[in-house]
Parts: sequence; structure tokens; C-alpha cells
Amino acid sequence: MLGAHHPLIKSVRKAVQRGGRTADGLAVAEGPHLLREAMGSSARIHAVLSVEPLEMPHHLVDAATMASLSSVESSRGVIALVDLPESPIDPMLAGNPLVVLLDGIQDPGNAGTILRSAEAFGATGVVFLKGSVNPCNPKVLRASAGSIFRIPFATMEWSEFPASRLDIYAAMPASGVAPHRAALDKPCAFVAGNEGNGVSSAILQEARAITIPTERVESLNAALATSILLYEAHRQRT
Amino acid sequence: MLGAHHPLIKSVRKAVQRGGRTADGLAVAEGPHLLREAMGSSARIHAVLSVEPLEMPHHLVDAATMASLSSVESSRGVIALVDLPESPIDPMLAGNPLVVLLDGIQDPGNAGTILRSAEAFGATGVVFLKGSVNPCNPKVLRASAGSIFRIPFATMEWSEFPASRLDIYAAMPASGVAPHRAALDKPCAFVAGNEGNGVSSAILQEARAITIPTERVESLNAALATSILLYEAHRQRT
Repeated sequence: MLGAHHPLIKSVRKAVQRGGRTADGLAVAEGPHLLREAMGSSARIHAVLSVEPLEMPHHLVDAATMASLSSVESSRGVIALVDLPESPIDPMLAGNPLVVLLDGIQDPGNAGTILRSAEAFGATGVVFLKGSVNPCNPKVLRASAGSIFRIPFATMEWSEFPASRLDIYAAMPASGVAPHRAALDKPCAFVAGNEGNGVSSAILQEARAITIPTERVESLNAALATSILLYEAHRQRT
Repeated sequence: MLGAHHPLIKSVRKAVQRGGRTADGLAVAEGPHLLREAMGSSARIHAVLSVEPLEMPHHLVDAATMASLSSVESSRGVIALVDLPESPIDPMLAGNPLVVLLDGIQDPGNAGTILRSAEAFGATGVVFLKGSVNPCNPKVLRASAGSIFRIPFATMEWSEFPASRLDIYAAMPASGVAPHRAALDKPCAFVAGNEGNGVSSAILQEARAITIPTERVESLNAALATSILLYEAHRQRT
């Protein structure tokens, strides 16, 4: 039975508090759903912490310690530590790429939703640009409902992204091209801007404006807008 | 200065706790953003509670009492009590109706997102069927970002809804018609099913299945799927 002061417990607590990986670089996946998703993916599970015996190698943890670890109010009784490496950029750009660039997305729920939509609509990768939430924030893993175990992702600076190799589209509230009139079947990337400030100016300079037609000129939630663009791209590609 | 035991304070607290209207039937709108949205709409503001003086009629409330009222961890210093009546069904079905039916949507965030998308994509109304979250749950108001002040909404039972007057579409994970192949420019309604159990069987019997094409046969989040259907309907209609 691992107690509150065991090094493994302490490393998980720190990762949850910081909203990132453990010091050993492992991702913290909370709850039985994420454990199943990790098991069904190619991600390697390094260790499992559980409040009750499981039919797999695991460390037993007492309920109070487990509850103190959780990033949510109600602990879900099990935590998997997952080896979840970033992807190199080249495979994301192979074939007919469809990439999402997170440009300062802060909300783990938004990042998770985007990962989920990216997988659903066949994106080739999700890039977390500097200033965005950590892709391995336990809350991002949870909101992705497991998609992060399957879709290639990476963190980098905008200057490192090979933008010339595809069409970059930034969703704007007005005066951009309508999604169904844009050639989204060509190699392209969608930029999801910061929840408060939108897309950064350095990216806007190199991006085409794309505007989801709405009845009122008011921005849709960033995750929702990105999901609709991904739906439209997938529709054009299939 | 209203204290914790003033009847107005007590009625707000009860509404927040119950997730609905006050005993007087008023909706509780928390925060300066929702106050502005209510002021800019046709909804009548019955009273405003604030921790600091405002340039409008208001009741001052001490900060501790205000914090104890809030449905979120960080109180936003101001609460508006808004007269927000339900809409009759007929105006929702006039012209070329585009309606959303919430069939047991429980999460206030999902309901708010749907209200927001419904307004953005020109829906004529949102119907909260029995078993769904209360449309005047303060968390729904907040998640709607003010859309609830502008889009007609109502609560009713499925048996009361005049389903024969439009095409009812239920989003299914597989084997339905693709949204861009469905005639969504005709009078129609989209059913957003319960987060866990999906669309109820009584409705499925009278609904056409519609399937958003995805790479993996796994359901998208109900609010996201509904938003994509609304986007597609709006695209076909404009």
C-alpha cells in the first residue's frame, strides 16, 4: 500500500498541481475510462495506482491518498502513468495533412475537445504552440476522453512550425472566406486562438481568414469553431 | 446593504442551490457579462445585486454574502434577477423552423453551448424536454453567454411537441444520413440526447437518424454534435 509520502505518489501530486507530466516525463491519466483507453492504444502504461485490486500489475493506494491526488473533486479510484511521447512534426505533415495549431488555448476542456474533434475528423496532428495549456495536463487528458493516446501531438514555437508547407487558416468573426468555399481538401492547418485574445498577430500575418457564417457577429467558442472547421474539412476530403 | 437573511438574498440562494428560478420565477444571471447581455436584450431586469455601487438601480450586498450566493467558486460581484419568460411553441414553428430538442441533456455547460450555437446558426427555438437541466439554471445562463436572453426557449414533454410539423433528426453514431445529404433547409428539429443514454426510444421511433461522418465510430459530445448539425443547417439555408 503506497502512502502519501511515497515518491511515486509525490510525483503524481506534483504533476497534477503543475498541470503537466511527472518529473519522469509520464502523463497522468485519471479514472477507469482513461485507463481503458490507454490500454487499447499503443501508449505504454508505466504504472497503475488503484484503491482496489485490479487484474493487472498495480500499486494499491489508500482512498484518502488517492482522493488527495485527483485533479477533480471526486476521485475516480485509479490513475495510470502513461508513457506518452510527443510526435515529430514530419509524420503530421505527410500525405494530405490536416493539422490543428493551438495558439494560446488555456482551458484544458477546450484543448481536450479539440483533440477529440481532431481525431474524429481525421486530423494528422495537433500542435500546442507556446502559451497553450500543457498537452499532458491531466485535465486535458480527461477532456480528450482518450483521443490524446491516439492522435499525434507536439509542442513547439510558431517559428519552428513549417507553415509554408500548408495553408494556414485562422477563424475570424467576420470577413474571412466561408469554410465550404475554402479548399480544405488541400494540405491545411487551423489555428485555434487564445480564448480571450484570439489569434496572435505573428500568425495572423501568415494566415488566411476563415469565417463560419453566423447570424450574429460574435465569436463562437474556440473549441467549437475549430471542431466545425474540422468537420467541414473532413466532409470535403471524404 | 442587504445581509445574508434578507428575503431577496435567500430567494437567490435557493435558486442557485436548486439550479432553477427564484420562487418568484426570476432567472439568476451572475456576473457583469451576463448583466450587460441582459441589458442589451428585451428581457426585463427585475433587480440587480452588487458588491459595489453601479450607475443603475441596485441593491448593495456585502462581499461575503455575495460570495456565498455564487454558483461558481469565484463570485463575480454582481447578480441580475431577470424576468425571462418561456416562449409559446407557435412562434418557434413559424416560417421555416429550425428547432433544437434537448432530450435529457443534464450538463448545464452542454445546454448553454447548445443555446449559444442555436442563436449563432439561426435556430428558431430551443425546447427543453422533461428530464433535461432547467433552462434557468444559473449555470446554463452563464454557459449560454447571454444567448438565452435572445433565443426563444420552452420546457415541455415530448408528447406535447408537435413533431408532425417538421422533420425530426436524431444524431446517431452510425448508419444515419450524412448531414450534407439531408434536406436541412426544410422545417426540421435536431434532438440532443442525454449524455449517457442518448436519445430516448419514444423519440427515436419518430426521428430520422442523422450521422456526422467521423473516422472512428464513437459519439461526439452531444453539444458539439448538435452545433455541427446547426452549422450544416445554417449553411444549407443561407
